[in-house]
Amino acid sequence: MLARMNLADLQDIASAPVAVQRPRLTQAKADLTREVTVVDESGRPRSIRIPAERDLTVYVDKRELVTLMTLGAHPEWLVLGYLLNQRLVGGVHEIESITVDWDVGAAAVVTRSGIDRIEERTARRVVTTGCGQGSVFGGLMDDVDRIVLPPQAQLRQSQLYDIVNTIRLHDSTYKTAGSVHACALFVDERLQLFVEDVGRHNAVDTIAGWMALQGPLPVGEKVFYTTGRLTSEMVIKSAQMGVPVVISRSGITEMGLHVAQRVGLCAIGRATHKRFFCFSHPQRIVFDAVPAEAGAA
Amino acid sequence: MLARMNLADLQDIASAPVAVQRPRLTQAKADLTREVTVVDESGRPRSIRIPAERDLTVYVDKRELVTLMTLGAHPEWLVLGYLLNQRLVGGVHEIESITVDWDVGAAAVVTRSGIDRIEERTARRVVTTGCGQGSVFGGLMDDVDRIVLPPQAQLRQSQLYDIVNTIRLHDSTYKTAGSVHACALFVDERLQLFVEDVGRHNAVDTIAGWMALQGPLPVGEKVFYTTGRLTSEMVIKSAQMGVPVVISRSGITEMGLHVAQRVGLCAIGRATHKRFFCFSHPQRIVFDAVPAEAGAA
Repeated sequence: MLARMNLADLQDIASAPVAVQRPRLTQAKADLTREVTVVDESGRPRSIRIPAERDLTVYVDKRELVTLMTLGAHPEWLVLGYLLNQRLVGGVHEIESITVDWDVGAAAVVTRSGIDRIEERTARRVVTTGCGQGSVFGGLMDDVDRIVLPPQAQLRQSQLYDIVNTIRLHDSTYKTAGSVHACALFVDERLQLFVEDVGRHNAVDTIAGWMALQGPLPVGEKVFYTTGRLTSEMVIKSAQMGVPVVISRSGITEMGLHVAQRVGLCAIGRATHKRFFCFSHPQRIVFDAVPAEAGAA
Repeated sequence: MLARMNLADLQDIASAPVAVQRPRLTQAKADLTREVTVVDESGRPRSIRIPAERDLTVYVDKRELVTLMTLGAHPEWLVLGYLLNQRLVGGVHEIESITVDWDVGAAAVVTRSGIDRIEERTARRVVTTGCGQGSVFGGLMDDVDRIVLPPQAQLRQSQLYDIVNTIRLHDSTYKTAGSVHACALFVDERLQLFVEDVGRHNAVDTIAGWMALQGPLPVGEKVFYTTGRLTSEMVIKSAQMGVPVVISRSGITEMGLHVAQRVGLCAIGRATHKRFFCFSHPQRIVFDAVPAEAGAA
């Protein structure tokens, strides 16, 4: 084969990303909502839909690690992203397979060569603020100082408004059943993936899992949107995923702000229609749309 | 002394609650919000307040148990309620003291005779849906079937409207800083305690800790209000606290509904102004106010 290749072919091979062994994943399906009968304020029965939360116990190399409560839209990406965001695995190449079986509520993860010191690394428990997945194993903050976000990354105010509008128009479980959090990954103002879950940490972990399986994303700035609060874990996870701009419909907590300032992340909160607060690193926003003009457009 | 007591005195003693040894608690104080400068959509700086989340590492008999992220309004009640709701202690009599020191972010719990099998009982980790305190130790569901809520307990619709209105008018960190959850305990429509925290599970645990320290509550039905979703843990905790009616501004998840149906808890969601959905046990509601009449009142 090599004899028939020309120089261009060889250069292609040399510049191509190193082939990564992708894990084998099931594609387990589950209903995201369920219809139930309630009684309304007039005492009459009504049919509404509620989120169909279910528990998923994660086993790593046959050892029980954790039970996640999830809506179940993309359980394999969720489990992968959870392991990545908890820094229990360093990349998808360490995972051989993730098999989800809703009949028994289990995700079986097989690693290629085990997780080093897993007992020790999962011993410390931190119960965090976030909705859902409030448990992070100790040491998450330890790696924060090593994170370098692209220093020049910027988002135009008009792109920010496009993002908020895209979320507003997106079909969602929230609209039919409520009580779920949404997260979305954008490149500039272009939506890449929209995920909902009962806990917003499940949603961001699912996006992390999906990102790890992708090839390179389109050229542009990565922007993360969440309906939930910008807590320290949410900011840390975004930074770990290399995302320099995070937008929330909700606010920020003091520790979230502290971490955002430390890692150079532009944290934008209370983003609705044409209004927002930028909590940190406003130099990442290009104010190209004053609200009055944007409102008239 | 006994010689001077008459029969009435003796009957008083016989019917009085058994004297419970109360734990010694510090009363650590912390600022609940902090003023920060943000940049708004016009590019101009503004001062706003954000919730001052902080971490509190709980040590039980010098052994590190968990780190809670909290607003810090009532850390001693929070730690006590956490231990009770996790079923790690059976009552306040088992606790000698809880000492919170914000300078080091630590709560030192001293028990009277240790916690039986604590290593084993905290080994299983369930990452749940709830905002905040998403980590419950395994086995929480195990006790659910033993819970018996008062079968006759009812709430009048007009009392429900009073409760929703009391919450609406209550001064709160949410109104100044946003991004927190509130919980409140009512007896009938009378507010007993209002607690906010960055996670709604911290808020309910704080109420549980406070309840455990009180003598008997006033006569009436216990009603629990939460701004957060009615997840399974929220319903379980309410039931453990003997509360037969729970009201939420938000919705319910499928597992929350399942547990509410199982324990006989009346779960009311989407409660705003004069509207609500009753998800389970509507027989606990006395429909004494049709919305049109109530709205005209």
